Amino acid sequence: MLEELKQRVLKANLDLPKHNLVVFTWGNVSGIDRESGLVVIKPSGVPYEELKAEDMVVVDLDGNKVEGKLNPSSDTPTHLQLYKAFKNIGGIVHTHSRWATIWAQAGLGIPALGTTHADYFYGEVPCTRKMTREEIEGEYEKETGKVIIERFSGMNPDYVPGVLVHSHGPFTWGSSPEEAVYHSVVLEEVAMLAWHTLTLPGADKGPMQQELLDRHFLRKHGPNAYYGQKG
Amino acid sequence: MLEELKQRVLKANLDLPKHNLVVFTWGNVSGIDRESGLVVIKPSGVPYEELKAEDMVVVDLDGNKVEGKLNPSSDTPTHLQLYKAFKNIGGIVHTHSRWATIWAQAGLGIPALGTTHADYFYGEVPCTRKMTREEIEGEYEKETGKVIIERFSGMNPDYVPGVLVHSHGPFTWGSSPEEAVYHSVVLEEVAMLAWHTLTLPGADKGPMQQELLDRHFLRKHGPNAYYGQKG
Amino acid sequence: MLEELKQRVLKANLDLPKHNLVVFTWGNVSGIDRESGLVVIKPSGVPYEELKAEDMVVVDLDGNKVEGKLNPSSDTPTHLQLYKAFKNIGGIVHTHSRWATIWAQAGLGIPALGTTHADYFYGEVPCTRKMTREEIEGEYEKETGKVIIERFSGMNPDYVPGVLVHSHGPFTWGSSPEEAVYHSVVLEEVAMLAWHTLTLPGADKGPMQQELLDRHFLRKHGPNAYYGQKG
Amino acid sequence: MLEELKQRVLKANLDLPKHNLVVFTWGNVSGIDRESGLVVIKPSGVPYEELKAEDMVVVDLDGNKVEGKLNPSSDTPTHLQLYKAFKNIGGIVHTHSRWATIWAQAGLGIPALGTTHADYFYGEVPCTRKMTREEIEGEYEKETGKVIIERFSGMNPDYVPGVLVHSHGPFTWGSSPEEAVYHSVVLEEVAMLAWHTLTLPGADKGPMQQELLDRHFLRKHGPNAYYGQKG
Repeated sequence: MLEELKQRVLKANLDLPKHNLVVFTWGNVSGIDRESGLVVIKPSGVPYEELKAEDMVVVDLDGNKVEGKLNPSSDTPTHLQLYKAFKNIGGIVHTHSRWATIWAQAGLGIPALGTTHADYFYGEVPCTRKMTREEIEGEYEKETGKVIIERFSGMNPDYVPGVLVHSHGPFTWGSSPEEAVYHSVVLEEVAMLAWHTLTLPGADKGPMQQELLDRHFLRKHGPNAYYGQKG
Repeated sequence: MLEELKQRVLKANLDLPKHNLVVFTWGNVSGIDRESGLVVIKPSGVPYEELKAEDMVVVDLDGNKVEGKLNPSSDTPTHLQLYKAFKNIGGIVHTHSRWATIWAQAGLGIPALGTTHADYFYGEVPCTRKMTREEIEGEYEKETGKVIIERFSGMNPDYVPGVLVHSHGPFTWGSSPEEAVYHSVVLEEVAMLAWHTLTLPGADKGPMQQELLDRHFLRKHGPNAYYGQKG
Repeated sequence: MLEELKQRVLKANLDLPKHNLVVFTWGNVSGIDRESGLVVIKPSGVPYEELKAEDMVVVDLDGNKVEGKLNPSSDTPTHLQLYKAFKNIGGIVHTHSRWATIWAQAGLGIPALGTTHADYFYGEVPCTRKMTREEIEGEYEKETGKVIIERFSGMNPDYVPGVLVHSHGPFTWGSSPEEAVYHSVVLEEVAMLAWHTLTLPGADKGPMQQELLDRHFLRKHGPNAYYGQKG
Repeated sequence: MLEELKQRVLKANLDLPKHNLVVFTWGNVSGIDRESGLVVIKPSGVPYEELKAEDMVVVDLDGNKVEGKLNPSSDTPTHLQLYKAFKNIGGIVHTHSRWATIWAQAGLGIPALGTTHADYFYGEVPCTRKMTREEIEGEYEKETGKVIIERFSGMNPDYVPGVLVHSHGPFTWGSSPEEAVYHSVVLEEVAMLAWHTLTLPGADKGPMQQELLDRHFLRKHGPNAYYGQKG
């Protein structure tokens, strides 16, 4: 069942330690088959070096386990909320990667300060609000997904494919599990760059020029893209 | 004698350089066999690449050498104090790992600023007070253990499995040598995250919400844990 | 056609990830054959691990593709401007390397604070001005080259073989593609050193003594050089 | 001639990139044979991966080349000054290692802030004064040695086996080339720790307690040492 997607989700999970985005088991990637509405996700608490494709867990969008011997990641309800709300995305990553987590702990979004950011995120990577006691003590992981969706009200998740959850860490997404991992790497990089830009004495602290943000994002994304080997 | 524990303590010691927690010989791991009251610990000043299981030194809780050709780590008396005071612990690690040592040198505990911290440490990782001249010039390593224990007065060492010794560096512990090493890795990570959170202009400087700390610590620890493959 | 230069440009491109200067495809190296006026450059958006010598693209100084199946790097027009204006240079590198990019995002040049800098850059590595809306919305990559050239008005590009493009990242150059890569590594190093020098409380913030800058640069460069195995 | 020392000096030089203390050729190690008064040192500007024992250059204490096809390191006159002034030392290392160089560029000595420092350096690692125009324009490398010696007036170089040269970088020494390299690694580590200790808000900024410095240095050094496998 969904064997190819399991292989890809496995590979995407294994790419997290390869890109130094995770310590121990602190991260998870999922992928969705939009046709069947089924989600493949990493099991909870299994070391990366032991993960196999058959360990991947299949759940439906209501969180029912459809296949798999192991428990799915405890963050599964967050992933499911995002798949339901963000219709175009095909993969989601959650990590506690260092630089993105620092911004999440600070409760601050990462402003767009340069073209590295602009090439992949069309503006600030936002940080969610603090969750209420009720949300935390209730269906916590599901509520985490809901505060992300709330934060993206009026925003296009395809143009800003990531978020920082307050006092927690980043989620990123993309059209596929592979692209979601790619965005996690980019987010970590821009989080590191932004931290050091804003703490350098004398630095220009404002966000980058809007026209430069437009130029860089739109030369890679959308109908007029001319970067790479497209066309 | 205690051959299996020696193997495990050796492996735990070798995991320190693997996790980039030590330079040269600057770290040590011990494990205790609670039944016999004997402690297995790394010898003093031997390079990690030369360490063998038979080099591990066996001492009793009064510090008498029971087996071993080499001198035990000079930090042995600190380990023994902790084993005597913290009845549930099975392993102890001492390193000069970079980020934790920075906080120790600063004389500051590491506040709980996010869920990475909350998943393993139930609140601030405390820093001990400065030792007195008498303590330093007396049985220094034993006194080091005593100021740690003093600092944990009224605290549960199973819920905060680590400490910073003022102007020195971290000790961590756990139910086993392996878990103590795991906690050293986590401590290093949260020390790095907290440093950069608190130095970022505009950051939320307060500790995280108590209810979020509760939720994260208690979903992994204690009778209601639901993380991983438990149950 | 230009087979040897293609091999060298390929190798120089592969040296970027080896020196940790690039993430994914975020960098490019070119080399010029001054006799024919032809430039060999990396194709756009191809992963380093898949690059082969025959993928290198050959263009003339007006940007016409002379050979190659793939599109040249989207930064090609910037490279061409520099080759036309800086007559002695034989290779150019563009990356988003971390520390240099931080200074570029801050909109600040990197002052000469020590001999590591002075050994290769004869004074501040400058940052370009912000580009105008017209420049950004026009022939953006070509205009990027022009603001670099404008910034070097009255400066000797052979003595300061690098620049930071505002809100973007570094370009370096040299007498060959290999030397341009070397200068990228040096720039990254001095950018890291300068960042931490200027943020250390109590530090001497001024630029280094002019006579020390002279001594170090001139013992390695120009007719009186005595460093290395020259003469 | 001095074949064993050449092998050891070669190995010590190769240990510099292994410990991430150098980029390209930016470092050198020498060793002295006190009986003959001859110094073995790395040649100038040769990549580490190409270095062979027979490339090592032998010079006398007046700087005359006694053996070797290549030019000795351009820093040789600095090494020779130190060997002449510091009678007990057997090896010297010069690098531009990142964290130590940051302190050198800042013109600040590294204060003793913790036991990692105290285990190897008995107090602050000092920074030399700025050199005069005459010193820089004269026999620069020899004068560099002289300002180091001037800075150590009244200090014991065996107890503080390293220095920062203002606007330049560190030199370390030891009883042997191997120990000098060891001290370079320690210096880099304590430079990193001190930088981050002093920039952490709320940190205890003062130097560590004198009695703790005494205890740590003297448990490893001098007649009452009890660390390691001594006695």
